[in-house]
Amino acid sequence: MKRHFLLAIALVVMGLSMNAQRGYMPPAVNSPDIARDGAVTFKVKATDADTVRLIIDSRLDTLMKHTGNETWSITLRDLEPDLYMYYFIVDGMKVLDNENAQVLRDVKSVMNTFVLDPQGDSPMAVHDVPHGEVRAVWYDSPTLGTTRRMMIYLPPGYEQSRQRYPVFYLLHGSGGDETVWLEQGRAAQVLDNLIAEGKAEPMIVVMPNGNVDEKAASSMSDQGNVQPTFAHKNWMDGTFEQSFNDIMNWVDQNYRTRAAKRYRAIAGLSMGGYHSLYISANQPDDFAYVGLFSPAISRMDQGKCKIYDDLEAKLIAQFKQRPKLYWLGIGEKDFLYKDNAEFRKLLDKNRLRYTYHESGAGHEWANWRDYLVIFTQQLFK
Amino acid sequence: MKRHFLLAIALVVMGLSMNAQRGYMPPAVNSPDIARDGAVTFKVKATDADTVRLIIDSRLDTLMKHTGNETWSITLRDLEPDLYMYYFIVDGMKVLDNENAQVLRDVKSVMNTFVLDPQGDSPMAVHDVPHGEVRAVWYDSPTLGTTRRMMIYLPPGYEQSRQRYPVFYLLHGSGGDETVWLEQGRAAQVLDNLIAEGKAEPMIVVMPNGNVDEKAASSMSDQGNVQPTFAHKNWMDGTFEQSFNDIMNWVDQNYRTRAAKRYRAIAGLSMGGYHSLYISANQPDDFAYVGLFSPAISRMDQGKCKIYDDLEAKLIAQFKQRPKLYWLGIGEKDFLYKDNAEFRKLLDKNRLRYTYHESGAGHEWANWRDYLVIFTQQLFK
Repeated sequence: MKRHFLLAIALVVMGLSMNAQRGYMPPAVNSPDIARDGAVTFKVKATDADTVRLIIDSRLDTLMKHTGNETWSITLRDLEPDLYMYYFIVDGMKVLDNENAQVLRDVKSVMNTFVLDPQGDSPMAVHDVPHGEVRAVWYDSPTLGTTRRMMIYLPPGYEQSRQRYPVFYLLHGSGGDETVWLEQGRAAQVLDNLIAEGKAEPMIVVMPNGNVDEKAASSMSDQGNVQPTFAHKNWMDGTFEQSFNDIMNWVDQNYRTRAAKRYRAIAGLSMGGYHSLYISANQPDDFAYVGLFSPAISRMDQGKCKIYDDLEAKLIAQFKQRPKLYWLGIGEKDFLYKDNAEFRKLLDKNRLRYTYHESGAGHEWANWRDYLVIFTQQLFK
Repeated sequence: MKRHFLLAIALVVMGLSMNAQRGYMPPAVNSPDIARDGAVTFKVKATDADTVRLIIDSRLDTLMKHTGNETWSITLRDLEPDLYMYYFIVDGMKVLDNENAQVLRDVKSVMNTFVLDPQGDSPMAVHDVPHGEVRAVWYDSPTLGTTRRMMIYLPPGYEQSRQRYPVFYLLHGSGGDETVWLEQGRAAQVLDNLIAEGKAEPMIVVMPNGNVDEKAASSMSDQGNVQPTFAHKNWMDGTFEQSFNDIMNWVDQNYRTRAAKRYRAIAGLSMGGYHSLYISANQPDDFAYVGLFSPAISRMDQGKCKIYDDLEAKLIAQFKQRPKLYWLGIGEKDFLYKDNAEFRKLLDKNRLRYTYHESGAGHEWANWRDYLVIFTQQLFK
């Protein structure tokens, strides 16, 4: 017992000394400190600082208050339940919250994160419900001539059952990759929670990488120490759309899917909405459910690739086969609002029936997580 | 075309403005800048700073040089190929490298990371070889009365074959969780590379969570906004070892395993080495291969749990059945070196045959990644 106790002490001392070296000190402050009523207090220790700011997503940029003992603090009381990303700026320098080990990446920017769930009912939070599996797989893309990485969500019970499942293809935006719907998008938590409550059907969710010049998210690729970027080659030039059948074929070959239109959905955000629009318009026999989340719509892509030609005629043909759901969501402050209004005019002019959801905020994840929750509940019913 | 061009401009502008808000500026410096010969230059912009330091793992803590234009810089020319973790300290404040979006967590401390692979042959790097699948699964633990998360590596071709595979159980240390062997440990890359070169047999690698008071890594648990910690309840008190059969049963039921001793290995680092020692000693019919990586060995745990009683007699019984490999690795600067020397004396006294590997450095990942590479090549042959 004595030796074991000494070992425990040794491990703890080692832990502290190793981590003191590594920038981890025993927490001098507790941050973020989330009260039961949902008030969130952020604190940071900063010696001799003149100004300390807190930045939360694109929602807030505010000065923190010096509360003594070299600590700067602020309490926010009006945050909605959601996932948040934040950091501090100390005298002009971006600094992360050392007391919070949870971080996420937005394109190239790393931020701290937390999920606010004061009522215990946010679909973004992890709850005590059956959890699906998440897989990182590599598939063959004959069209692109390479193997590529994608993420797969399998609903709870998939491995134990012999059932076949519907498939939801969920596409990321420019600057994203195959990981982003699971990380910022909370796709696994949203699906787990909606399925547990009986609000969504058990389904397979497929999250491919829509940047055709990379095989995988930058840290998972053999293409070297490349940083994530908005600037991908073959960006929205039709290449991804043309290679999409490689993904569908691989999924149908490797999973127990219901490989028919009425059991297939496709949706995406921003660039992924653009991809979803054109893939579904060019493959009218493949998707009964289409979701355009703040889609980066351009109706003038003719000539760049045949996939973008004759959109109006293609939409008319697609809607003749009556998709079960054609869903369009956009924030009123989105810089793509006007483009989307024009796209709606095109649909209206042709009396093509779609569901329109207008929300607050702009081109951001707060909207896309909500759209995922709303859209997913309408699939395969 | 014109509209598409405008859309592109809009997206780029949006990207820049959103990310300027979010602390991402177009890179003013390139960091880390890795030259072909393996020299690595770190740069950071810091206005009005007095001192800027670079910290790399526990290997280096060095001052950076002011090279003008508010930029501080240092070039290191003697780094071995490996994964590195680093951060800056600007006037006493921990700051991450804004130009590098790759980060990893060590217990509670978030750091930037990169893989140095100047020759293109490091087993830690992603290479253009067939990749296995990585799965995050939830298993039932009747012993612990809950479902828990673990990570599974499946070798390339598993899904396409009908073959059965050997299983390697790979355990983390105190402060780690089910994710750490994949992240700091590079287990998927090491396995992919060794299998591709024919140096390791295709195998399933199972990475459970050894902290019995948590269901999953802190961000993946429904236990709230809990931070990662060294201080877990039921820490090394026998509970994990006693629940280990739940993991083995679940794996054998859900995967095409070769469910026999000669096709099973167990290894772990630090606390995971301690777990591996006692699980294999108490289940002498289960593991033909045992790896103790800098194990947190204590031979005086008698009385805490029967699993720790009579180790010497158990080891003698275990070795009577001739394990194919009993492997012990430790760094000469490890604070557990002396404990391990005593453990070797116990083995030697009883003429129990083991393989001993002594390396440089201390209780750290540079050793554990190497041990994984060495140990894995000796399995199932």
